[in-house]
Amino acid sequence: MVHRTAPLPIRILGTGEYTPAVRVASHELDARWGRPQGWTFRHSGISHRHYAGPDETTSSMAALAARSALAAAGLTASDMDCIVSASSVMEQAIPCTAVLVQRRLGLEGSGIPAFDINATCLGFLAALDTVGAALAIGRYRRVLVVCGEMASAGLRADDPETAMLFGDGAAAVVLGRDGGGESQVLNVRLETYSEGADLCQVRAGGTRLKPSDGRDDFLEGAYFEMNGRATYRLAAQRFPAFVDRLLGDAGVTCAQLRQIVPHQASAKALAHMEAALKLPAETFVRVLATRGNQMAASIPIALHHAISSGKIARGDLVALLGTGAGLSFGGAVLRY
Amino acid sequence: MVHRTAPLPIRILGTGEYTPAVRVASHELDARWGRPQGWTFRHSGISHRHYAGPDETTSSMAALAARSALAAAGLTASDMDCIVSASSVMEQAIPCTAVLVQRRLGLEGSGIPAFDINATCLGFLAALDTVGAALAIGRYRRVLVVCGEMASAGLRADDPETAMLFGDGAAAVVLGRDGGGESQVLNVRLETYSEGADLCQVRAGGTRLKPSDGRDDFLEGAYFEMNGRATYRLAAQRFPAFVDRLLGDAGVTCAQLRQIVPHQASAKALAHMEAALKLPAETFVRVLATRGNQMAASIPIALHHAISSGKIARGDLVALLGTGAGLSFGGAVLRY
Repeated sequence: MVHRTAPLPIRILGTGEYTPAVRVASHELDARWGRPQGWTFRHSGISHRHYAGPDETTSSMAALAARSALAAAGLTASDMDCIVSASSVMEQAIPCTAVLVQRRLGLEGSGIPAFDINATCLGFLAALDTVGAALAIGRYRRVLVVCGEMASAGLRADDPETAMLFGDGAAAVVLGRDGGGESQVLNVRLETYSEGADLCQVRAGGTRLKPSDGRDDFLEGAYFEMNGRATYRLAAQRFPAFVDRLLGDAGVTCAQLRQIVPHQASAKALAHMEAALKLPAETFVRVLATRGNQMAASIPIALHHAISSGKIARGDLVALLGTGAGLSFGGAVLRY
Repeated sequence: MVHRTAPLPIRILGTGEYTPAVRVASHELDARWGRPQGWTFRHSGISHRHYAGPDETTSSMAALAARSALAAAGLTASDMDCIVSASSVMEQAIPCTAVLVQRRLGLEGSGIPAFDINATCLGFLAALDTVGAALAIGRYRRVLVVCGEMASAGLRADDPETAMLFGDGAAAVVLGRDGGGESQVLNVRLETYSEGADLCQVRAGGTRLKPSDGRDDFLEGAYFEMNGRATYRLAAQRFPAFVDRLLGDAGVTCAQLRQIVPHQASAKALAHMEAALKLPAETFVRVLATRGNQMAASIPIALHHAISSGKIARGDLVALLGTGAGLSFGGAVLRY
């Protein structure tokens, strides 16, 4: 069905993260929900997460992460040939979020193309896949990919099971062609099983619920809904074979991977991934405990953390790996 | 800033359109708005448009257009290596629309990757650009691009100036690698000027307006807002130089184009494009009068119309061209 290609000469030129203003500790949530001290941490593995402040938006957070990634790459915003926003949830329905990020970066008269790619929590992988192809054929030299996420906007304060899992934040990655033969994307793989389309959803935000349908339905639909148990079951069933195909097509074994950069979906999902891959815990990058699930920002934030903390060095083999609404599986194998 | 590449061996294998159930004639709108007979047609150049019926959704319309494009290509849904939805407005915030189209096509257990690309009304061009690169490097052999649009969901019944312009509908295009050396994408160009980000917008649908902000704001923001005069001014100022760059990089002159397939933004926008390009009226594909502005579906529907009516034959040079929220300009030059 999906073809693998020869390794692509793509290099991660810089990464960045932005952590928003409001820090929410799990013990504060215990109090809010009338649970015993330690309940939220015990059920989520998250000690605290951050929420956007009143003056922060999806695009403002993404632009601050972008500034940091550009500085790491030694480039400026106007050096970019394209801006791709790969958030799960847009800032507004029209225009696309990349346009708003372009404006936040002071590029409003630049003409630099700006569009969005959406694969929910796997947006960064879908962007790496398609942008990588465009870089490989010389369509662009350098592309800025941003993932700003404000999960808190769609959380129900009275639904601890879901609300405890998520945090806001943003990541940015500057991608370019590799000139030196050191960095490569060996394989990217996405698989979508829409038998799970209803398991994780926000029903509003598009044409399914219209303002003319009535206020209550419209508002109710704006909250995130998840059937955690069924999602976990479907993911667990499909995941091992997916990883085999991803690594097999890359010509890489698990043991060759210096680090695995997982989507930080939940403590349970991370534990399942560790068990399925049978690798030591230190192979897996974990930022969940201090950030929560940041949707599409999770994978590039974990990548940024691994790079900036020295867990990944140039030339290392790395796999990015995750599951997202759809239900979709995504992975990339790259030589950093 | 943006690099042109060598021509890519990409072929349009099939196109399809779906016209939804409810036909709304302009004389009906005259009556609804208390205007004299003929007012709506005179101001819009649209005799009728279609709206989705109560059982139709963005993804159901897109899937019906896809069935038609697949039949034209002599392929089935399971022959596709990837499904891309390039609508302006999603069906719901999570999951992405391509997932819902995958399910409508009976592919829910297939694993075929499904994600969205969003460049508002230029979505099809952004998809052609990125999917074209993926086809060129062999990442995919055949990709289904769908654009389902339900503009009517965001129209204010009491705002004739905006409401008269739009219609619902869907288009689909099957793209593949060209084996025979006949078909090519010579150039794709996108330029975004976020100085116009506020000119065409839907403020709701994402994280900018939250359900917790209060019901009235949330509902108000779900309607499409347009500053038509300022959009037209900015578009007119930037458009001629954009077209020069698009055609210049493609190595093609206006006179060599068999047909121009424009975004059907409005009668005024089409008249401006004709004047700017100084080409005879019959060079421009027009479907506006019987469909209205169908947002991202407009360009591929006009392309489908030109192909199915024999205005474009294999080997002809064609330009797709449009302006969208952002403000963005997009164009593609291809040998069909």
